[in-house]
Amino acid sequence: MSAPTPTPTTRAAGAAAPPPTAASASAPAPNPTNCKVILANNIAKRLHGEVQDGLAALGRKPHLVGFLANKDPAAKMYADWTGKTCVENGFDFTLQQLERESLEEAIRAANRDAAVDGIIVYYPVFNPSRDRTIQYIVDQRKDVEGLSPYLINNMYQNIRFLDPPANVQKSILPCTPLAIIKILEYLQIYNTILAYGNRLHGRRITVINRSEVVGRPLAALLANDGAEVYSVDVTGVQRFSRGEGIRKQQHAVEDKDGWTLADCLAVSDVVISGVPGDKYKVPVELVRDGAVCINFSSEKNFTPQIKEKASIYVPAIGKVTIMILLRNLLRLVQNQPGTGGSSDACAAPEASS
Amino acid sequence: MSAPTPTPTTRAAGAAAPPPTAASASAPAPNPTNCKVILANNIAKRLHGEVQDGLAALGRKPHLVGFLANKDPAAKMYADWTGKTCVENGFDFTLQQLERESLEEAIRAANRDAAVDGIIVYYPVFNPSRDRTIQYIVDQRKDVEGLSPYLINNMYQNIRFLDPPANVQKSILPCTPLAIIKILEYLQIYNTILAYGNRLHGRRITVINRSEVVGRPLAALLANDGAEVYSVDVTGVQRFSRGEGIRKQQHAVEDKDGWTLADCLAVSDVVISGVPGDKYKVPVELVRDGAVCINFSSEKNFTPQIKEKASIYVPAIGKVTIMILLRNLLRLVQNQPGTGGSSDACAAPEASS
Repeated sequence: MSAPTPTPTTRAAGAAAPPPTAASASAPAPNPTNCKVILANNIAKRLHGEVQDGLAALGRKPHLVGFLANKDPAAKMYADWTGKTCVENGFDFTLQQLERESLEEAIRAANRDAAVDGIIVYYPVFNPSRDRTIQYIVDQRKDVEGLSPYLINNMYQNIRFLDPPANVQKSILPCTPLAIIKILEYLQIYNTILAYGNRLHGRRITVINRSEVVGRPLAALLANDGAEVYSVDVTGVQRFSRGEGIRKQQHAVEDKDGWTLADCLAVSDVVISGVPGDKYKVPVELVRDGAVCINFSSEKNFTPQIKEKASIYVPAIGKVTIMILLRNLLRLVQNQPGTGGSSDACAAPEASS
Repeated sequence: MSAPTPTPTTRAAGAAAPPPTAASASAPAPNPTNCKVILANNIAKRLHGEVQDGLAALGRKPHLVGFLANKDPAAKMYADWTGKTCVENGFDFTLQQLERESLEEAIRAANRDAAVDGIIVYYPVFNPSRDRTIQYIVDQRKDVEGLSPYLINNMYQNIRFLDPPANVQKSILPCTPLAIIKILEYLQIYNTILAYGNRLHGRRITVINRSEVVGRPLAALLANDGAEVYSVDVTGVQRFSRGEGIRKQQHAVEDKDGWTLADCLAVSDVVISGVPGDKYKVPVELVRDGAVCINFSSEKNFTPQIKEKASIYVPAIGKVTIMILLRNLLRLVQNQPGTGGSSDACAAPEASS
């Protein structure tokens, strides 16, 4: 029995995308590709529901205080956006604008003030080294950014609770790395068939940027969840991994001497880039076909051509990050003595959070 | 603020698995690993519910006829198992044992018999070439195995429906390849974030076995769903792929001259092996850490050591295959004129089925 089946040629002509040409590599693709572009807004919605449920259970408005001690218009814009998002979502926000030499004392006062639930400082204030010491002043019980030494230490050591062995109070993770993890969960890169804590086993992930606030903690978190992570910056490549069969309880870091970004991209299912400045672009031709690509820089680290190769592309993550900030604030309040001490009302079903 | 955090050394000692030793490579692992072993039974349960729902909507027992024209005890055992599973699940089954020279006429009679909904022939009967012509005799409207030329042709060309442009009658796919696809869906290797038909984009899959009944159709199905597939047998390696950005509507096949199994395994997230005979073993040391490994041979193609490396291991698939057989039978009945012509009652939410 035969049937009128179209030939491969006519079927190919009916497909959405044309065959690649030299022109399509430089000009924007006129036709749709198979790449799924996922906007942060869609991912933030899920977190929004979770935050609202936690807030309803709490029965009061958590209060976040922001400290702006620089003249950077971008920091002011971010501060205003934080305030707007807080108010829209049922949180209180106070912005303190002050001279930078008064900052440390103002933070100490907020640490003591029972009316303050969370503290955020808009960096940079002085220089990276002195700003670091400012992070140390913020009381970890009010640290929405998860940058206090104790919290950071927990994160690198894959310690997920503040109160072992009871393990009901989850440790606070830095906002941007946690936002990226929530995005990877949404994109089904975390495989929920695997045991909690191992759900990235078998994934190879390149992270371009190894800053102390995002790139390095992110590489650590992903490796702790089972991934093999290639962390890339101008100084070279490091591998973060729990080893064969992810037998180690926490990741180890290894310098990959002689490795370049090309070596990392050639084996990576997921590429996460956060290089500041508008000059940097991830070389599309080195990205593996079907890779999942996420940009967390405020600039576009990927050119539009990435859509001709990636299976999924997330161009920006800001709306998820700010929802994580509110989620962290809520968790801080839930962790306060007398609030029940449990973070169950805000518990995530998956991953490291 | 400091906290009593255990040192990396004590944490590693508290983990389940010991560091790998020379001994652990040859002896069975005494300690649990991070590999998730998934038994076919768990996957079959989901299909079972779907088949029962379809059957309830149908309101009558579909009737499968099996033809056993050889003296192979394994074939007899499989026939008995088919019968038992049919009866247990609310289907009628008749086994016709006959001389092989009467087989063709018996199949033609069953083709004409309105009381027969589905036909299965237990192979081998003669030799591969003559058995092929027997497959051609089975009426495609009663072919539960999906081996008729028209159905096979649909499969290779990525044509998923029997009645374009209405597209309500799904084409019948061969049982074992479809069982493996259902397993990959269950294991979340299909990413439902991606568009239907593209959900394996970015996956590299090695299929060891290129038989006409399982290995080659499986490679084609996986590539049609967006995967890059390395098909391996004793004659060499072929790549089945829809190309960069999966722009082609259906897969193309390319000989990978000079490639060996080692090259394929080095880049593969998923390894599917179905080599007959108890001599063949997939070399564990060449499998990527965290790979998903599936055995569809009746013999064990993987040694127990695979669990020290794989993230997921499925040791056998028979119980899923037989549930697919019943699902195909149900679909044949649903596709009969007067039954509504729609396979909606048995529609799968995902993938190529």
